[in-house]
Amino acid sequence: MGHTSLQMKSEELDQADLMSSFRSRFQLPEDTIYLDGNSLGPMLKSVPERVSKTLHEEWADGLIRSWNDADWINLPETVASRIAPLIGASPQSVTVTDSTSINVFKVLSAALMLNRGRKGIVSEKGNFPTDLYLAEGIRDFLGQGHSVRLAEKDDEILDLVDDDTAVLILTHVDFRTGRMLDMEEITKQAQERGALVVWDLAHSAGAMPVSLDDVGADFAVGCGYKFLNGGPGAPAFVYVSKKHLGSAWQPLTGWFSHRTPFAFDHDYQASRSIKQFLCGTPPVLSMIALDESLKLWVEVDITEVREKSLALSNFFLECIDGMNLGEIFSTASPLENTKRGSQVSLRLADNGYAVMQALIAQGVIGDFRDPDILRFGFAPLYNTFNEVFSAVETLSVIMETETWKEKRFRQRKAVT
Amino acid sequence: MGHTSLQMKSEELDQADLMSSFRSRFQLPEDTIYLDGNSLGPMLKSVPERVSKTLHEEWADGLIRSWNDADWINLPETVASRIAPLIGASPQSVTVTDSTSINVFKVLSAALMLNRGRKGIVSEKGNFPTDLYLAEGIRDFLGQGHSVRLAEKDDEILDLVDDDTAVLILTHVDFRTGRMLDMEEITKQAQERGALVVWDLAHSAGAMPVSLDDVGADFAVGCGYKFLNGGPGAPAFVYVSKKHLGSAWQPLTGWFSHRTPFAFDHDYQASRSIKQFLCGTPPVLSMIALDESLKLWVEVDITEVREKSLALSNFFLECIDGMNLGEIFSTASPLENTKRGSQVSLRLADNGYAVMQALIAQGVIGDFRDPDILRFGFAPLYNTFNEVFSAVETLSVIMETETWKEKRFRQRKAVT
Repeated sequence: MGHTSLQMKSEELDQADLMSSFRSRFQLPEDTIYLDGNSLGPMLKSVPERVSKTLHEEWADGLIRSWNDADWINLPETVASRIAPLIGASPQSVTVTDSTSINVFKVLSAALMLNRGRKGIVSEKGNFPTDLYLAEGIRDFLGQGHSVRLAEKDDEILDLVDDDTAVLILTHVDFRTGRMLDMEEITKQAQERGALVVWDLAHSAGAMPVSLDDVGADFAVGCGYKFLNGGPGAPAFVYVSKKHLGSAWQPLTGWFSHRTPFAFDHDYQASRSIKQFLCGTPPVLSMIALDESLKLWVEVDITEVREKSLALSNFFLECIDGMNLGEIFSTASPLENTKRGSQVSLRLADNGYAVMQALIAQGVIGDFRDPDILRFGFAPLYNTFNEVFSAVETLSVIMETETWKEKRFRQRKAVT
Repeated sequence: MGHTSLQMKSEELDQADLMSSFRSRFQLPEDTIYLDGNSLGPMLKSVPERVSKTLHEEWADGLIRSWNDADWINLPETVASRIAPLIGASPQSVTVTDSTSINVFKVLSAALMLNRGRKGIVSEKGNFPTDLYLAEGIRDFLGQGHSVRLAEKDDEILDLVDDDTAVLILTHVDFRTGRMLDMEEITKQAQERGALVVWDLAHSAGAMPVSLDDVGADFAVGCGYKFLNGGPGAPAFVYVSKKHLGSAWQPLTGWFSHRTPFAFDHDYQASRSIKQFLCGTPPVLSMIALDESLKLWVEVDITEVREKSLALSNFFLECIDGMNLGEIFSTASPLENTKRGSQVSLRLADNGYAVMQALIAQGVIGDFRDPDILRFGFAPLYNTFNEVFSAVETLSVIMETETWKEKRFRQRKAVT
């Protein structure tokens, strides 16, 4: 299919799109095609008014009283109750607090405490680095001979899970390639070997249905600022299976994790609910922005999100193919729908960074991940098929005209 | 001195107040006397515009690019550089991240790792509970025979510091009574016994000069939302003495604590700077509000803040005395200026909660701390002497008319 037919097809797909009305709820910059919502989701138009209300009415006027009167104190549960249905979790199994990294520390620590006889932490080399760093951090802090073993390839993961494995921690959708693991099968097999299983849902929550309760996951964590659009550095969520509530214990035992935080007892009494996974005072302004952003989801059918996500990804691949870019780029993402999250990653042996910078300069925002990955995320709530077409067409022009060779595109910045 | 003379004196003191111009920078509710800035500081008028800019220009328009273009990535250092002078710290010793509770976990863990041969954590019973809970949490997580020992009284603290004490953690100003410890002397004596010393500055930063570098403190933590007015749940600061930078290591080893976070290596390489005390992605909106709130301090002389703070406290005590309230309330705070922070706490054997509720209903906001403490915080940047007079006069009327006996004042809410 040539450019013109692909363009026409994109318009037809947009006309048939049942989710197209959601786009107007986001404040998106003009002349920009945003395919990086898997890094930082855009802002819902309703957020500034809500934040303003929190600033003026709740903070400035209500002052300390707002912990009760504006119910700040229950924000972790309020926000969690909006996320729980998206990840197939009972609301009492979820809370929202701190960062994903800190929540990884909590659930890994809790898993090691529950599975005390065992010393192994297993993951895979491609996992998001922070998850691996925290596993190493816990191992080094405890100094009790724990091991962190990383599979080289996905199909070697379960081989590493043996009778000394306390916990297996995996990211459901790989941040570089978008490959998606079989959560149900891996959970089942790892648990059969006596391991507890932690899922990092950073690239899953809000992009596809997840069924934590049904697959019997032990713990999960995830991010508020990607497909959930909660704002830069939005607080993260943490999930603890009902079977572990009351017995799981994490060591960041700040006052919000106490059974009666405002009794100011000097002895620690662990909350027996999911609140044991809280620690200190939550950052209210960031929590409020996340809370407001999540309200949209009651109108959204997450299975439809997944359908459109796959349609966008497949149309992207079709455009790559139709514009003969398959000769330049290889596809780093799995082609099978059941094995891919909500992104497509292209590989370019050299100059991938410069090509992505040239794309961004043309208003097509994806991102680059070392050493050779150009990453394009698809967010069904606001991305259109026509955007996908235009993005690939822009890429095609950049490659043809070699604009990426300009010096300004080849300089590195701190965060890419 | 009677009511009228005290009122006149309050007006004279306000007229002579060199700091009076700062009050107009805060958005304070009308008909309210706010003496709870040691719980949650009020909002600077400049905050909403800054937050709005971050929402619209940086998040909505800049999207992912704002990590570089709006310098979000350096917020922990930018904000820290505003706090460092207030606590007598080199900027390279301070960062701003996470909550005070989480930072307590980091510095206690780091101290135990530095002082490995020793097993003791020492504090005192009146310390803010979260600090004690975290000490217990670390002890229980490590399971290596560490002890947490708490002094019953201040003058018994150093007796507990022996040749097995790894770390002494103390809050400089007691949250209940406002009693202030001698940071220099305690640090010196504890260090002479081989202990490392952590100071919690929750009720000190922004209320008085602190000299962390000069007293040779090893670590410190503190709160962004009290006297620093950073907003509800504002991120907290953490201080690591220059002598420990590069060797101190904390176990929440998220990607922001890595030497090169954006290389996405799977092996952890600890940053050798204060960044090792970061963990995950910072909550940008809450960081921005704190950053904006802190800008005021370049205009402020912190020694003048302390002078006015003491004058407010002493005038409060004079009013209590002058209105014969000393017969009803005892003073829980030390009367000596050198031993008191920026608050005065009154003790009432029974019904303290109801009395505070009656005060709040009359627009005088302090807070109640179990079992018998009425707490009044003085923030020199916005509190006036006339407010102090009016607060005590209102208290006097409430005690005389016994309005606190009304049923509505006697019900308990979740957060007090």
